Amino acid sequence: MLSKKIKAALEGSSAIRAMFVEGKELAAKVGEENVFDFSLGNPATPAPESIKTVIKELLDEVDPLVLHGYMSNSGYEDARAAIAGNLNKRFGTDFTWENIVMTVGAAGGINIVFKAILDPGDEVIVFAPFFGEYRSYAANFDASVVAVQPDFETFQPDLAAFEEAFTEKTKAVLVNTPNNPTGVIYSDETMKKIAEILLRKEDEYQKEIYLISDEPYRELIYDGAEENFLTKYYHNTIVGYSFSKSLSLPGERIGYIAVPNAVTDAKELLAGIEVANRTLGFVNAPSLMQKAVAGCVNEKTNLEFYDQNRKDLYEGLTKLGFTCIKPQGAFYLWVKSPVENEKEFVAAAKKYNLILVAGSAFGCGGYVRLAYCISNEKINRSLEAFAKLAEEYHLEG
Amino acid sequence: MLSKKIKAALEGSSAIRAMFVEGKELAAKVGEENVFDFSLGNPATPAPESIKTVIKELLDEVDPLVLHGYMSNSGYEDARAAIAGNLNKRFGTDFTWENIVMTVGAAGGINIVFKAILDPGDEVIVFAPFFGEYRSYAANFDASVVAVQPDFETFQPDLAAFEEAFTEKTKAVLVNTPNNPTGVIYSDETMKKIAEILLRKEDEYQKEIYLISDEPYRELIYDGAEENFLTKYYHNTIVGYSFSKSLSLPGERIGYIAVPNAVTDAKELLAGIEVANRTLGFVNAPSLMQKAVAGCVNEKTNLEFYDQNRKDLYEGLTKLGFTCIKPQGAFYLWVKSPVENEKEFVAAAKKYNLILVAGSAFGCGGYVRLAYCISNEKINRSLEAFAKLAEEYHLEG
Repeated sequence: MLSKKIKAALEGSSAIRAMFVEGKELAAKVGEENVFDFSLGNPATPAPESIKTVIKELLDEVDPLVLHGYMSNSGYEDARAAIAGNLNKRFGTDFTWENIVMTVGAAGGINIVFKAILDPGDEVIVFAPFFGEYRSYAANFDASVVAVQPDFETFQPDLAAFEEAFTEKTKAVLVNTPNNPTGVIYSDETMKKIAEILLRKEDEYQKEIYLISDEPYRELIYDGAEENFLTKYYHNTIVGYSFSKSLSLPGERIGYIAVPNAVTDAKELLAGIEVANRTLGFVNAPSLMQKAVAGCVNEKTNLEFYDQNRKDLYEGLTKLGFTCIKPQGAFYLWVKSPVENEKEFVAAAKKYNLILVAGSAFGCGGYVRLAYCISNEKINRSLEAFAKLAEEYHLEG
Repeated sequence: MLSKKIKAALEGSSAIRAMFVEGKELAAKVGEENVFDFSLGNPATPAPESIKTVIKELLDEVDPLVLHGYMSNSGYEDARAAIAGNLNKRFGTDFTWENIVMTVGAAGGINIVFKAILDPGDEVIVFAPFFGEYRSYAANFDASVVAVQPDFETFQPDLAAFEEAFTEKTKAVLVNTPNNPTGVIYSDETMKKIAEILLRKEDEYQKEIYLISDEPYRELIYDGAEENFLTKYYHNTIVGYSFSKSLSLPGERIGYIAVPNAVTDAKELLAGIEVANRTLGFVNAPSLMQKAVAGCVNEKTNLEFYDQNRKDLYEGLTKLGFTCIKPQGAFYLWVKSPVENEKEFVAAAKKYNLILVAGSAFGCGGYVRLAYCISNEKINRSLEAFAKLAEEYHLEG
């Protein structure tokens, strides 16, 4: 009855979502306050108050036929101009509204870019560990992802392996920094080398190869790190963004794609992305929310909230003897499993009401991901449960 | 650079959108008030005032972490329950929240249903004239539409031709009543016969064949017609709905899919649709709007507004000697072109600042579509321009 692709997808459905459901089930049994659910990247600090104010103003001041009406499939010109201007101010880019396409979140954005550029059989290089949905997104267009293993010390990409991953079918390279699931920020040096290799490969294969930057965590950075914007490294860079994390609006599905003029035939690519937005069924990004985020483009999320969680969890688990990658951004902690098969570890953790996600969901077994976007009180209470888990594995803090 | 599919799509891009752009260009030249743009189905009567009130209440009363947060990929349970309850009251169905999946408009809804059920090579039968985007939606999954020509007197489906259109690749039949572009409502008799044929074909091919009902115009009906809900005719019926027209919210991309329990393995199909919603990149329908439409589920649009336009335009054009199909629903008028190639007629109309859409965009040449969702004042002023056009073709009123 179901299509073959969806049948397969149902069988191997998202491990993250599965853990989220398990967490809910556990909560029903032992009480929500006793479950430490580190499964889902659902922001735990609310949208800034100004979102509410701006939406109310829009409702009072904008003609409802405009506010809730059709616009160009790429979005309202004023919303796109506001975003372009904000990026230009922060990153010295030279965008106009025409470089921006409003999208149904970053997931919608990546899918319409993929639809615009990928033919069946094409390959997209991704750096493990990576957001598992990338695999589904490529499969939507009968393309596939080719995963490059990381340097296991730093969790920066292994650049020698990267260079070897190219084939004549490579159409794009997808980066996600600050990274989900490791929290690592790819260094300036890493990005420069990725760009060098890309240029060499464009020359070798005599065709465009895109760098697609999935940037939902761009502003979630700690320890005084500087916000980075990847178009400066490489000419054929396409940026995908979501306001899900930066403004705590994940349910609203609002983001954008930016295509710089430096991209080969940028106008044609933008036209293709616009058509893909329509024909894949998005039509356009939600209208009221386009104007709402444009009105809040200078707002920031509560970084201190995540930073406190980051410190408490990283220090707490390290003290207990767990091996953790220190997160520089996003809101994930990447922890080495004390046993090779991390699924065993995930199962053991569940006994103490700790819901973790197996690294194999991110193409990188032997590790687990903790999303620390939950209350700080819970983070600190969870450390007792982790202490028992550490004991079970005879870890020494 | 672009994928082959998108390259082709760009070349043959939406005729409706193209006319919309031409209308804008013309407006820039001769002044918006002098252009009679009948191209786009963009509601011209505003969203009910209660949408504003409900959104403000939601902003004041619902925790922003909930209001703008992730929920199940199928949508908030309370929004789905409100819609289920409303349908049950109006149509005697027995839906619960579990039968409803909130979607990014009807376009998003049809795409995730298609993704859930269509394998490459599958066929979807549609009744000409039909919304041209159906072709793109099927192509997204390497399936195709098979168009059945209408009875040219009534623009009800030609049921003999329908029966002959089935092959072993037929996976679904897509109906859209009240119809875009004709404004015709498929009669009770038509629907019963369609159901009979479907049952026979399920038996003949020994597999499920779905009836997909695309119902954005369900409530836009005139002359005392009764609202219809197609699940009563055939067991394997899936309903796709959008609030775009009924609440004048086309830009917000909010709708739903309803899968009755009578559908074979309904739960599995719903699970497949949910996964498709996530993996195609929608993730979920916009969160605030889910709750907003649930709060306005008993609201109605300003039917009198469209009805006045319908009467004035139908009567005006008929008097001038044009052959028009009398619309029973939606907000479209279907007019026979005075010359065989209706594209010539569309070009001639443009000389009088009349923007029409060629019927070939709907798989049915020789006719044009007029979307009469513009101001009544303009409808009446447009009749002078139509008079000149009628004169050019020597029509006799």
